[in-house]
Amino acid sequence: MDRNELEKISDFPLGEENVAFAQYFTGKSYLSLLNDKEVNIHNVTFEPGCRNNWHIHHGCGQILICVGGHGLYQEAGKDARLLKSGDVVYIPSEIKHWHGAVKDEGFAHLSLTVPTEGANTEWCEPVTDEEYNKLL
Amino acid sequence: MDRNELEKISDFPLGEENVAFAQYFTGKSYLSLLNDKEVNIHNVTFEPGCRNNWHIHHGCGQILICVGGHGLYQEAGKDARLLKSGDVVYIPSEIKHWHGAVKDEGFAHLSLTVPTEGANTEWCEPVTDEEYNKLL
Repeated sequence: MDRNELEKISDFPLGEENVAFAQYFTGKSYLSLLNDKEVNIHNVTFEPGCRNNWHIHHGCGQILICVGGHGLYQEAGKDARLLKSGDVVYIPSEIKHWHGAVKDEGFAHLSLTVPTEGANTEWCEPVTDEEYNKLL
Repeated sequence: MDRNELEKISDFPLGEENVAFAQYFTGKSYLSLLNDKEVNIHNVTFEPGCRNNWHIHHGCGQILICVGGHGLYQEAGKDARLLKSGDVVYIPSEIKHWHGAVKDEGFAHLSLTVPTEGANTEWCEPVTDEEYNKLL
């Protein structure tokens, strides 16, 4: 998907290719910092089929605010949830989960975290094509 | 503006008429709670011409994430800023300001605050028609 198409997924800035976290993603994503005071807010845009690895936030949770396209959110042992613009997901700390786009459409969500001393993310195994393709 | 039209301003739920804070608003607004864990997030929808009074957040700031229509944000002594979907505004504590819709179009923003002990809002005078009409 070219940059022009990706920019149309949401009204928020697309930012740069998410190179720093690419090792924890399947497919290409983009990251744009929107605010770093009191709450860290990034716009995360996923190409169709792109998703992050299973991961766990330790020490603080994360909030997703969906702003464009369609995506998926899944907690370990639960059914995946289909996401659309206007949905909000609270992810408690210590819960293993992943999120990303559906296969045939891009997806953008804002990611919110409250800066918390000692908080960190534990990155786990990728969501395999076999797991992912079953969901769609 | 009827409920059906107001619901089209953003992808987020419109919620109920904002009766609790109506005394601090000129015109009608709507409020919908989206998240109350770690960060309090509401969708606030303003009818055309609706704006809140000048006010000051004490003890913690506020973040506005614009999600539909066009609005205005002004800090005391500064020019008003025109807002559109995709804009993000950080409002530091202790800064006198107001926000609301433009005259001829509704506006919706998410309001984010980190729950902070002892934080409160000081409501001041309304933005008069004379002040407001000069901006447009």
